Amino acid sequence: MGYLIGVDVGGMSVKIGLVDNNGKIIEKVKFVTDLDAEKTIRTIAEKIKAILNNNDISEKEIKGIGVGVPGTVNPECGEVEFCDNLHWINVPFTDIICKYIDIPITLGNDANAAILGEMKFGCCKNYNNAVMITLGTGVGGGIVINGKLFDGVDGKGAEIGHMTLVKNGIECNCGRKGCFEKYASATALMSITKKEMLKNKNSAMWKRVDGDINKVDGSVPFECSKSGDVSAIKVVDEYVSNLSEGVLSLLNIFRPEAFILGGGVSAAGETLLNKVKAYCEKFDYGYKGAHIPEILIASLGNDAGIIGAAALV
Amino acid sequence: MGYLIGVDVGGMSVKIGLVDNNGKIIEKVKFVTDLDAEKTIRTIAEKIKAILNNNDISEKEIKGIGVGVPGTVNPECGEVEFCDNLHWINVPFTDIICKYIDIPITLGNDANAAILGEMKFGCCKNYNNAVMITLGTGVGGGIVINGKLFDGVDGKGAEIGHMTLVKNGIECNCGRKGCFEKYASATALMSITKKEMLKNKNSAMWKRVDGDINKVDGSVPFECSKSGDVSAIKVVDEYVSNLSEGVLSLLNIFRPEAFILGGGVSAAGETLLNKVKAYCEKFDYGYKGAHIPEILIASLGNDAGIIGAAALV
Repeated sequence: MGYLIGVDVGGMSVKIGLVDNNGKIIEKVKFVTDLDAEKTIRTIAEKIKAILNNNDISEKEIKGIGVGVPGTVNPECGEVEFCDNLHWINVPFTDIICKYIDIPITLGNDANAAILGEMKFGCCKNYNNAVMITLGTGVGGGIVINGKLFDGVDGKGAEIGHMTLVKNGIECNCGRKGCFEKYASATALMSITKKEMLKNKNSAMWKRVDGDINKVDGSVPFECSKSGDVSAIKVVDEYVSNLSEGVLSLLNIFRPEAFILGGGVSAAGETLLNKVKAYCEKFDYGYKGAHIPEILIASLGNDAGIIGAAALV
Repeated sequence: MGYLIGVDVGGMSVKIGLVDNNGKIIEKVKFVTDLDAEKTIRTIAEKIKAILNNNDISEKEIKGIGVGVPGTVNPECGEVEFCDNLHWINVPFTDIICKYIDIPITLGNDANAAILGEMKFGCCKNYNNAVMITLGTGVGGGIVINGKLFDGVDGKGAEIGHMTLVKNGIECNCGRKGCFEKYASATALMSITKKEMLKNKNSAMWKRVDGDINKVDGSVPFECSKSGDVSAIKVVDEYVSNLSEGVLSLLNIFRPEAFILGGGVSAAGETLLNKVKAYCEKFDYGYKGAHIPEILIASLGNDAGIIGAAALV
């Protein structure tokens, strides 16, 4: 007794895992997301049944299924309200999956799931108050207050990526200008990198991508900065100052015990972490006599989506 | 039984009030703040005793004394840690006042007190989740989550005035640049007003201050904008966009039931409120299908400090 199922619904693929009480994945599968919601949800049910079968576990032994989606949900009526990347609008997820499987379902936002995963099973186990940002296509936010997820009325809060960092700055998909995610997401990092590469054809970053600028990802500037490439260092410094200004704002608002950097860019690990810490210590409002929050890199890595979704249960 | 005492310690004056269970002030007094903390605190005790005497109320009939200070406190050990305007550092407030009076003391930050006052006795009675900003010398912040004050580890959070609004913007006293309070405080409004007046010597705002720019306060641009003065309208528009950008960021982060504008600038009332509402509706991230928070002007007016402090108890 006491297993969990975590379902990480992404724009590209759906990952499903059987997770034990310690957040360890026993078995996992992955399949390509279909934009037809009904079809994807039926496949999720089938894959879960197959995993249970493989492991000789009955549906009754599963405490619940947690489902993380990249958008807004209504957990009470079990509806996925809006997923931009999936083109899902008002999908009655729970009603559909219950036709195929008899296990309680908990729906949640994927960034919320990520911080819950870190709280229950990851780097954030020992903290009751924490803020996490996921640095991916956008910037997602997860907030835990007194050991509980906080996400505002109807779960529509914790949209940390949409706080202004630069008034009248870069246009955001949300209709405003200068949102944090336009400066601190993986997308923003790639855009800063490409701009700098076009300015400096001698940068080592060109070699790293075999001369093909379309191969740029978030790791390129961090790796090349380590070997002293001036352009890469410039990119990393600009990105770190964008990110850290947002982090400092959130430290002043929440003054949490811990602040966690997750998502694709966080794969840069210590290189990123040390620079963010140094920046935050330099511009240290609130540090005068105040608690200094731990700044950490998310620890669940590639399995964060599955484990986080399981933690929603 | 059941009276409260509210003490509002300000940079200029200390206000003390005897408050009943409905947040009504029965008697109040005011005296000039002395930078000598010991002296001020002794005077507070004497004034409280005099009020009790006047009203034939014994110390035992008072549930508690709430004290709001414009800075950081440690409520557990009853210490005022740091008040910039008062030059108070590590003042053992509770230890000192207990030498003179035998009533339980609750210390708190004044902006936190303000939102508690609005929650218990003011415009925010019917909300469990709310954010308040006080627009005064700086921008203070008060956050209520699930009916309880949230102010981070050791009460050092809710420093909403120190989230970045303009990366690399105006220098702030806190050591960072571009903080929200440098654009949305009463001080900021006065500075925008003066700059515009110096550019346009024909503005009606000059008449309003008898040609003396030192007489400018936050009411000047709002009043003159009503009669169509172009410069005043320009000032109000710039200020409202600064303020509203910060409000929108906070709506996206907290998605509260209500958002309250307090402090000196909020005396502009409906003129301010309608413009902020219109701005927020125009740049409506999160409004698409999401709960629209009520945006309100604080209702306790001049007595907010006393009533809010009483609400700390």
